[in-house]
Amino acid sequence: MRKVAVVGVGHSKFGIRNDVNISELAFEAVKPSLEDAGAEAKEVEFMALGTTGAGAWYEELLPAVVVAEYCGLTRAGLTRCEAACASGSAAFFSAYSAIASGHAEMTMSVGLEKMREVDNPTAMEWIGRAGYYLWEFHNFGLTFPAYYAMYARAHMAKYGTTEEDLALVAVKNHKYAAMNPVAHLQKKITVDDVLSSMVVASPLKLFDCCPITDGAASVVLASEEKVKDLRIDTPVWVAGIGYSSGTANLSKRNDYLGLEASSIAAEKAFKTSRTAPSQIDFAEVHDCFTIAEIMGYEDIGLCSKGEGTKLIREGQTEIGGKIPVNVDGGLKAKGHPIGTTGCSMIYELTKQLREEAVEKSRQVPLKNYVGLAHNIGGTGHYCYVTILRR
Amino acid sequence: MRKVAVVGVGHSKFGIRNDVNISELAFEAVKPSLEDAGAEAKEVEFMALGTTGAGAWYEELLPAVVVAEYCGLTRAGLTRCEAACASGSAAFFSAYSAIASGHAEMTMSVGLEKMREVDNPTAMEWIGRAGYYLWEFHNFGLTFPAYYAMYARAHMAKYGTTEEDLALVAVKNHKYAAMNPVAHLQKKITVDDVLSSMVVASPLKLFDCCPITDGAASVVLASEEKVKDLRIDTPVWVAGIGYSSGTANLSKRNDYLGLEASSIAAEKAFKTSRTAPSQIDFAEVHDCFTIAEIMGYEDIGLCSKGEGTKLIREGQTEIGGKIPVNVDGGLKAKGHPIGTTGCSMIYELTKQLREEAVEKSRQVPLKNYVGLAHNIGGTGHYCYVTILRR
Repeated sequence: MRKVAVVGVGHSKFGIRNDVNISELAFEAVKPSLEDAGAEAKEVEFMALGTTGAGAWYEELLPAVVVAEYCGLTRAGLTRCEAACASGSAAFFSAYSAIASGHAEMTMSVGLEKMREVDNPTAMEWIGRAGYYLWEFHNFGLTFPAYYAMYARAHMAKYGTTEEDLALVAVKNHKYAAMNPVAHLQKKITVDDVLSSMVVASPLKLFDCCPITDGAASVVLASEEKVKDLRIDTPVWVAGIGYSSGTANLSKRNDYLGLEASSIAAEKAFKTSRTAPSQIDFAEVHDCFTIAEIMGYEDIGLCSKGEGTKLIREGQTEIGGKIPVNVDGGLKAKGHPIGTTGCSMIYELTKQLREEAVEKSRQVPLKNYVGLAHNIGGTGHYCYVTILRR
Repeated sequence: MRKVAVVGVGHSKFGIRNDVNISELAFEAVKPSLEDAGAEAKEVEFMALGTTGAGAWYEELLPAVVVAEYCGLTRAGLTRCEAACASGSAAFFSAYSAIASGHAEMTMSVGLEKMREVDNPTAMEWIGRAGYYLWEFHNFGLTFPAYYAMYARAHMAKYGTTEEDLALVAVKNHKYAAMNPVAHLQKKITVDDVLSSMVVASPLKLFDCCPITDGAASVVLASEEKVKDLRIDTPVWVAGIGYSSGTANLSKRNDYLGLEASSIAAEKAFKTSRTAPSQIDFAEVHDCFTIAEIMGYEDIGLCSKGEGTKLIREGQTEIGGKIPVNVDGGLKAKGHPIGTTGCSMIYELTKQLREEAVEKSRQVPLKNYVGLAHNIGGTGHYCYVTILRR
């Protein structure tokens, strides 16, 4: 397997970005990522764009060519990757594979989402369709928060997880988002704020849910030879990638205590990277809802099944704890531009592994210089796990 | 570079397929492709779905998981690839790279499109948006046939190409479609039929344009080791792949005589496969409009610039000629389910290279056992060229 490194990363401001169109938004991430790599746009041989909303919540049907033209990437090979909320990771895998296969020396994955351009149907309705539209959504009307609410109820019934435990995830992630200038919700909250917020799908309340966010993130990848050419001081190597999927219909799942796709993807990523969960210094865990982060701990293997609640109660996933998780604010508070999240996770891993987290107070302590990104699409419909090592 | 082979192919009936939903349509191609490979669905480690219309001309927003569940592929890694009309080739490149990179032993690319599920906007309007929606489509109202009509006018002005020459492409491709049981338009036509058909965007008339088609095609790929395990008699090897892109805005193109993305992609594919255009036994050339096939001859290098018209006039691209092109009927008459076409081209190459073209009368003579697929997205916005060798 050819070695591939992350050599440049860029990130736009996350939030409500009615001030830019999709190309301008992408450019805010692409430009700094190329500068970070010390490379020019014309050196990029292949670009994979991770985005879900083309023709849904924004108007462009062929966003990859539009973004490529605006960012000076025309002539590179292009593809758009969609794996719902894991689209950014699918794009990263695509850009990675193009180099690992021997086809290219330098590639790029860009995550992009602008979720408020189209009013009808809204992004809220589109996301509700995640799963099997013609069967479960259309016939039973389950919404996306309702899917995760079923999982929350099952976890509470089996493991004694409480609404306060869920709230602790939100409190932790808001704490770190308040320290992250690119985050959407830069505001500390309390357990009481969460518990007293509006019920969305019981037991999930407004502050258990991630916001609808616009934003972009860009990652430049290079082969070992290209890393030398570019004289990169701190390449961050792709150590392992795992992927899997779950049934479209949630009614066909074996249980509602965790996401099987996460377990399989994590196992594959650990196997290909020859690492164990105990060797991971920190992680980005997909927290579209607070319950998702707790199940994520367990599915990835950061703790045993049913022990996730203990990790959050004891503060083990904060900086200073056993395994810091989502110290950029996570989807919950940094925000979750659907197709962008996977690339935003890679951005955070890279910055942390280089020990250049923008805000030093957010720098995690590194022992093995290994970080993990866990990115779910839908409700465990897709999963990609990526392990980076400096 | 790890060797990768096509070991199984499947194809649905192309046409107006209101009789099936997207999963059933995909299954018509997936099932025979697995049988062809002598493999089971659970052996597929990664599946890339090539499709453009999710949430546009059909309702499912996450078609990959829906198709995977129906076809027994759940648990495989999944991604959906969109590169407009080259989505099938982008998916093939993704499935190929997953093996070539060393990440998987068996993968699958499935092309799928069902273009009449949603009435408003129609597929016709969506396709018109190809390019830069917010600029050229929205402001100037150019439609997709109008884009290619500009190219046709320029080619006619510079090289003396006539409307009759364009018609010859349609006549040839309809002739072969009439012999292909999976084709959408199984009907021979004459030059007069084309010339007297309704003007769509002058000089292009109805019979210069491919139809709006529903259909699916599936390709199973395997590593060299897996080819041995499966005891495949006639593996067809991926010899080379090239890709490139063009500007989103057509107003930014250098000229309207050919598609630069095609030339660059073809050059890369020839370079990686260490073959020359003269060694190609036959080709699938992207003929969404008749002018596209003639420009394709020239862009790929099957003839010099401006000589494409001569090839079609002399019948050199028919069986018995120098280089048979689109002997399955092409997009023009076999039909063009947008995201399916790339995989359908690989299906045809594989069948021909194995010398098992379903209808023996359509079998091309093979000398070097090399075939080429040229797949354009939009108006040269994307291009993938794939070369297979038995």
